[in-house]
Amino acid sequence: MLTVAIAGLGTVGAGVVRLLHQNADLIAARAGMPIALRAVSAKDKKKKRDCDLFDVAWVDDPIALAQSGADVVVELIGGADGVARSVAESALKSGKHFVTANKALIAAHGAELAKLAERNKVQLAFEAAVAAGIPVIKALREGLAANKISTVYGILNGTSNYILTRMREGALSFAAALQEAQAHGFAETDPSADIDGYDSANKLAILAALAFGVEPNLAAVQIDGISGITPVDLLFAEELECRIKLLGVARMSEAGLEQHVGPVLVPASSTLSQVDHVLNAVLLRGDFSGGVMLEGQGAGAHPTASAVVADLIDIARGHRTPAFGVAASHLKKAVAAKSAHKTHYYMRVQVMDKPGVVADISAILRDEAISIESLLQRGKSATESVPVVITTHAAEPSAMRRAVEKIAKLPTVVEKPCLMQIED
Amino acid sequence: MLTVAIAGLGTVGAGVVRLLHQNADLIAARAGMPIALRAVSAKDKKKKRDCDLFDVAWVDDPIALAQSGADVVVELIGGADGVARSVAESALKSGKHFVTANKALIAAHGAELAKLAERNKVQLAFEAAVAAGIPVIKALREGLAANKISTVYGILNGTSNYILTRMREGALSFAAALQEAQAHGFAETDPSADIDGYDSANKLAILAALAFGVEPNLAAVQIDGISGITPVDLLFAEELECRIKLLGVARMSEAGLEQHVGPVLVPASSTLSQVDHVLNAVLLRGDFSGGVMLEGQGAGAHPTASAVVADLIDIARGHRTPAFGVAASHLKKAVAAKSAHKTHYYMRVQVMDKPGVVADISAILRDEAISIESLLQRGKSATESVPVVITTHAAEPSAMRRAVEKIAKLPTVVEKPCLMQIED
Repeated sequence: MLTVAIAGLGTVGAGVVRLLHQNADLIAARAGMPIALRAVSAKDKKKKRDCDLFDVAWVDDPIALAQSGADVVVELIGGADGVARSVAESALKSGKHFVTANKALIAAHGAELAKLAERNKVQLAFEAAVAAGIPVIKALREGLAANKISTVYGILNGTSNYILTRMREGALSFAAALQEAQAHGFAETDPSADIDGYDSANKLAILAALAFGVEPNLAAVQIDGISGITPVDLLFAEELECRIKLLGVARMSEAGLEQHVGPVLVPASSTLSQVDHVLNAVLLRGDFSGGVMLEGQGAGAHPTASAVVADLIDIARGHRTPAFGVAASHLKKAVAAKSAHKTHYYMRVQVMDKPGVVADISAILRDEAISIESLLQRGKSATESVPVVITTHAAEPSAMRRAVEKIAKLPTVVEKPCLMQIED
Repeated sequence: MLTVAIAGLGTVGAGVVRLLHQNADLIAARAGMPIALRAVSAKDKKKKRDCDLFDVAWVDDPIALAQSGADVVVELIGGADGVARSVAESALKSGKHFVTANKALIAAHGAELAKLAERNKVQLAFEAAVAAGIPVIKALREGLAANKISTVYGILNGTSNYILTRMREGALSFAAALQEAQAHGFAETDPSADIDGYDSANKLAILAALAFGVEPNLAAVQIDGISGITPVDLLFAEELECRIKLLGVARMSEAGLEQHVGPVLVPASSTLSQVDHVLNAVLLRGDFSGGVMLEGQGAGAHPTASAVVADLIDIARGHRTPAFGVAASHLKKAVAAKSAHKTHYYMRVQVMDKPGVVADISAILRDEAISIESLLQRGKSATESVPVVITTHAAEPSAMRRAVEKIAKLPTVVEKPCLMQIED
């Protein structure tokens, strides 16, 4: 018998409780023993929840769950610090296994918690922290463990993917697509973590840690969001036979480990471009395995519960795996590498339609040794701004960013240019 | 230190040896100890191989590897019986872990070997037996272990997928596409195991065992191959906005477990239809996870080696998992269930163009209560046969098979009709 205590009974917490009940026999057969919920802790004891808590102890202070007698503490509260972090530390220090769906916690304190787990000879597990129902942590940490990984990338945020999909399908504005996502419960009232790329960045930092043997480091991830994308960009992407996807990309090169979250133009013919709506997908490239893609539900109570209980089954089976694939003391520091990876770029500049604008922009690009592949200026207006869209040949990321900053300062340019990589 | 003995040094065996050398440091860091090759056995000691066997003992009789002192015996010989089976049994009985890439062995004797492994408290592992570089065994047995699985299906054979892709892309005949596959080394001189569906069926039986807790049973798989598919079928599929894929499908329904390998028309808009050339893809549907798709290299020395060494790392980490996810004594028998799953069908009948042919075919379908969705007769010839293509509304599989048999016997029908399911 493996006994479990859960901190946090929101939609995911209730989902885990339902799953433990609903598939109890099957879980016991696969785990080799029953997995039983013993104690829970949540803010509001009286709140009606869609799960059965009969015979489960209620503990007011989640930090006290470590002393509840359960073998495993599951944290489903969220947040990089505060209560979640205290629950993790108290559990591990008390010699309890610790399972979490909390990407912010792991991205911020994963290395430190992994060391704590190793010192106390217990398991730290977080399959649910990245891409929920897709067992991608396990794929990286175990399934592809024999491989030197060169890149990990993918669509790591369902909310943004839904918004970008609906903008394209329905020719919607960003605001309208966001509103639709909120109406469907795919986006929160404050959507910034999703649309500004921070949620993806947390997940990418965790995947990069597993792939490259480094401590997760959010500060080393360059983060661009999707709120600056307009229907005009979708139309131009279509013309370039591409789709716009918010990607997290981690890549090991001679310059070091590059980590970047941002909107990217991917070829419409690629499998990744077909991953629409709230689906997530992760691509891993190993030196022996070749490319492997995993696709599925990246969020939601049930897919997340599936991952949490998979971790519990691993623990019941007696599996002990270093949290990030190698001993925590062996993890290297992930520093923000200067990107050396040359790519093609898409840049949309909103300009007042005056003579010389294109000449000014072209001169800045020339000075940064960036070569223009195509330039399109559509529409004419004496009073409103018009878009100039430029695609470049493969260019240095740092040069491109410098050029964008200079272009943004031109008097005829009315807003910060929209810059996206174009994937080959 | 985990020590390994390998039986069979063909392309895969040499690939495993290369991988163990090339990524030795990384493997040791992830496994928590070095993994060292100690002994090998192969037919021809003098054969030049693209791998370093310095300091490795040569054992003439592969069955004697169990006594070589290694902790794990890896079998890469192939074949359901004969030497491979003896190597497996001798290893397990001697208390050695046993790792194999041999799908035929596991599909035929997996349950029995799993029992032997459990009795001797060692691990039986076969990640490489299905879809090589894609860690799909691990995904089913561990990543989705909390889920009740309803279906497992996918493109499980790269050779057939390559042939079908090239027939479509290049408007090639089956024979020409097969020849091309052979020229590229994607098909063997005797390609029957691949094109007749037996290779896929072995893999499907293994996936079904893991998904549904049954003993793998090849005899319960209904198997249709692709050699009857002609360019005409590719054209009609295109018109129906579909692609033809050789799928293995295992589905749990009220009627029991259905297992079927055969060509299927999948919508051109689906992700699966984009999986081309030698790529494999597997879709799993869990009650909590939802659908999960895994795609990658399903064959080849390096992807297969990646899976073999992943199993070795698991063993070094001390992971012991029931080979089929639950204790071998708990596995149920997989009987051939009568398919209750109604689907749309595509049927091409080659007929001599005489009055009344269509009436005869229609009458047979009517008598089996199968309703026609569309009927197309293209081309006219007084001397040669012409194709009649019929698509049906959802029909009972058994009724459809009876109808096909009756239609095949019509005097105007010149060959066995080509029958394929149409996936929604």
